[in-house]
Amino acid sequence: MNLKVVLKVLGTVLFWESVLMVPSLVISIIENSYARNAFIVSIVLLGVIGLMLKSIEVSVNIRKREAYASVALSWLMMSLFGALPYYISGAASNYIDALFETASGFTTTGATIFANVETLPRSILFWRSFTLWVGGMGVLVFTLALAPSLGARSIFLMRAEFPGPSAGKLVPKLSDTVKILYIIYGVMTGATIIVFLIGGMPLFDAVIHAFGTAGTGGFSLKTGGLGHYGSSFLEWSTMALMLLFGINFSLYYGALKGNLKTVIKNEELRFYFIFVILSTLLIFINILPVYSFSISDSIRNSAFQVTSIITTTGFATTDINMWPLLSKIILLILMVTGACSGSTTGGLKLIRVIILLKSVIREVNYTIHPSSVSKIKIAGKTVDDEIVDNTLIFFFVYILILFISTVILSLDNFDFMTTFSAALASISNIGSGFELIGPLGNFSQFSNLSKLTMTMCMIIGRLEVLPVIALFSPAMWNKQ
Amino acid sequence: MNLKVVLKVLGTVLFWESVLMVPSLVISIIENSYARNAFIVSIVLLGVIGLMLKSIEVSVNIRKREAYASVALSWLMMSLFGALPYYISGAASNYIDALFETASGFTTTGATIFANVETLPRSILFWRSFTLWVGGMGVLVFTLALAPSLGARSIFLMRAEFPGPSAGKLVPKLSDTVKILYIIYGVMTGATIIVFLIGGMPLFDAVIHAFGTAGTGGFSLKTGGLGHYGSSFLEWSTMALMLLFGINFSLYYGALKGNLKTVIKNEELRFYFIFVILSTLLIFINILPVYSFSISDSIRNSAFQVTSIITTTGFATTDINMWPLLSKIILLILMVTGACSGSTTGGLKLIRVIILLKSVIREVNYTIHPSSVSKIKIAGKTVDDEIVDNTLIFFFVYILILFISTVILSLDNFDFMTTFSAALASISNIGSGFELIGPLGNFSQFSNLSKLTMTMCMIIGRLEVLPVIALFSPAMWNKQ
Repeated sequence: MNLKVVLKVLGTVLFWESVLMVPSLVISIIENSYARNAFIVSIVLLGVIGLMLKSIEVSVNIRKREAYASVALSWLMMSLFGALPYYISGAASNYIDALFETASGFTTTGATIFANVETLPRSILFWRSFTLWVGGMGVLVFTLALAPSLGARSIFLMRAEFPGPSAGKLVPKLSDTVKILYIIYGVMTGATIIVFLIGGMPLFDAVIHAFGTAGTGGFSLKTGGLGHYGSSFLEWSTMALMLLFGINFSLYYGALKGNLKTVIKNEELRFYFIFVILSTLLIFINILPVYSFSISDSIRNSAFQVTSIITTTGFATTDINMWPLLSKIILLILMVTGACSGSTTGGLKLIRVIILLKSVIREVNYTIHPSSVSKIKIAGKTVDDEIVDNTLIFFFVYILILFISTVILSLDNFDFMTTFSAALASISNIGSGFELIGPLGNFSQFSNLSKLTMTMCMIIGRLEVLPVIALFSPAMWNKQ
Repeated sequence: MNLKVVLKVLGTVLFWESVLMVPSLVISIIENSYARNAFIVSIVLLGVIGLMLKSIEVSVNIRKREAYASVALSWLMMSLFGALPYYISGAASNYIDALFETASGFTTTGATIFANVETLPRSILFWRSFTLWVGGMGVLVFTLALAPSLGARSIFLMRAEFPGPSAGKLVPKLSDTVKILYIIYGVMTGATIIVFLIGGMPLFDAVIHAFGTAGTGGFSLKTGGLGHYGSSFLEWSTMALMLLFGINFSLYYGALKGNLKTVIKNEELRFYFIFVILSTLLIFINILPVYSFSISDSIRNSAFQVTSIITTTGFATTDINMWPLLSKIILLILMVTGACSGSTTGGLKLIRVIILLKSVIREVNYTIHPSSVSKIKIAGKTVDDEIVDNTLIFFFVYILILFISTVILSLDNFDFMTTFSAALASISNIGSGFELIGPLGNFSQFSNLSKLTMTMCMIIGRLEVLPVIALFSPAMWNKQ
């Protein structure tokens, strides 16, 4: 690995992180809060370190190994430095809590250690939700849009950060592709703010919740979450918006270009809608008794939770701890799958679920007719065997990390559901689970070891495992 | 698929099942119990149907697809007919309970619906534990040893039933291979009976517990299980015996032949011992406070449970529901892995865990050095890519079936731990779990739907998924 290349990427990312803190600084100055100095110190520190590393002269082009290392280390550094405002201002009671909250933001997890968010200054709340929004589309991707100087092969950087098994360019130039994605993201976020304003939210609340919806992270500025506003218009519209942010963004580009046919023929999209409808129906029937057989309450709560969980947003409107076990198990499965690749959601991504299911069918057919050799096809296109293998291995590592983190979290000796759903909520970037970390709970009661474990899980989950575990391979650190 | 071939295999298996009931009939005559007529009716019915199907004239040789269908259907039929003695005698209160108990026996699961086994007649207890013993090495394999007439390619039959990713012949002739395996199994079972007699058990108790140990199923004839005898000699010796039955039987053949080197170099065996020792140590430290810091009690209980669970036996000596969560989670992970391939244990098998872990390392190396193409090696030997792919797919289907069965079981609305561990205990053929199905519990409180689901899971787990799911493929039922 060429360390200089990696350091230069790190510098670029940290420099832009300091720029991203500026809006929060402005808010802290306007509100004249105790967080102002924390932002000034953080911005100066990040800016100086960033500029220093950024100025490293690099002659060689970036390769796959440098890309993977850069992305993994960038996300670690971003979280370590992004925690400074919480820590210096004293909003978080210790550095590990601050780190947890920052990683939770950038990875669009939305898990919080704040028991009472309503007492936090607006600048801190803004920084918290802004990390969500930036993390959704990817920080490296953001950097690429602004600093395309990292070399022609920086497509590797995008691939390592991109949610899903394969990332492609929409247009020949990578920086243009990235700009298109960010423009779509920005316009959709703007539309979300407007919808929330119409729903009666104050501007600041609308912006914060729009970040939470667009990044599918689910940070709120009310302890009661979205339920605080008690508006079914807001609930239904948030549901629709979350669903939209769970769709592969390149499909929006396709639709704008007039390729409606490929959008409609998209297997992942169809699977997504069928999966949402089926889960909503099953839970609806199952929770009817909980809501005294009120059809409207049951269907609204069922549809909201299914959407909130499958998009890995984690907005809360009702106490799902009261639901029967069947509904909880269905939600746990949605936590594993996540929504579409190329969206801001976490989890396995549905395209992978489709590839996994098709590889089972292929294996069965091969057993019955050993002479048949067939390729897996999605929407008529052949999927590379390399991607199939990669998906199968990805699934194993995902479950493996889920098991290992559950073991570590179990040291805290909470109940099984709290522990298991906390591990799952971290690695799938959902941010809420059941029992102690249900919609009314938070993550503050976990030990420091557990918080660090979950922080790592969030980053591993967001970067889809491989870049992070590659860091631990000795082969990565060879001079070559 | 050639249905005639399949029916002939089924007939052979059912005929031999009727023969296997004869010892139980003899016991029922000696004890003069109400179960006598039940055995007579079952033996006659099975014998007649078996002989009829067995006499079908078949000219073609068996192919992979017929082998898979034969094995899956044999196990279903064996369970459906093997349930007759419980049902006709009235020992089980309904047919579904009887079916559950039979499948639990043949698959060496050892889950029981009897709340009070001590009131059952000895003939029924013997049949129950004898199914465990026969199921351990495989019923088809047993049939092959006695009726090698099924064709030269009946190695496919053995492969479909064999526990592990690959089954090989020890000697050129398949029927000889099978006989060798059964002789080793028989001698080891005999030795187990002698050890239990020395430990002070009455002869009948020793035989029943030897079947439970050898088949790694764990049926007992006491409600309190092995703990009933209150003997630490029995506990330590059962532990050692379970460990031995968790080892690949072909290694014993290798050792007898003097190939001690291959035994010592066996990676799965090493992994097995390291895994057992590590888990025992972790649980030992974790449960010290539960046993008032008694080192001898803690180490004995820890080692016993680790051995009992990793070999998927499920013998109980202490109430593991009282243990802290960490210990429970470690046991849950052992439930997933199981012990060595080619043994009577269930679960994934450790060789698959090794292949999975190595495939992750290969993928990481490939990411860092895309030009490197390497094969996975185990103890110096290359593992076929086909077996690697098959293992990765196997893992996914295993988890998928675990999720689906958890969804169905959750309809009973018990707690999460009961539900999840019941599904896992079924598919991994362990037979006990936590909370309601802990060492003092039983499976009678589940609904009929849940019992049928678990029955299917036990068979799917025992046959390692593919043969059973292949039955549901339309391609299987083509005339061809």
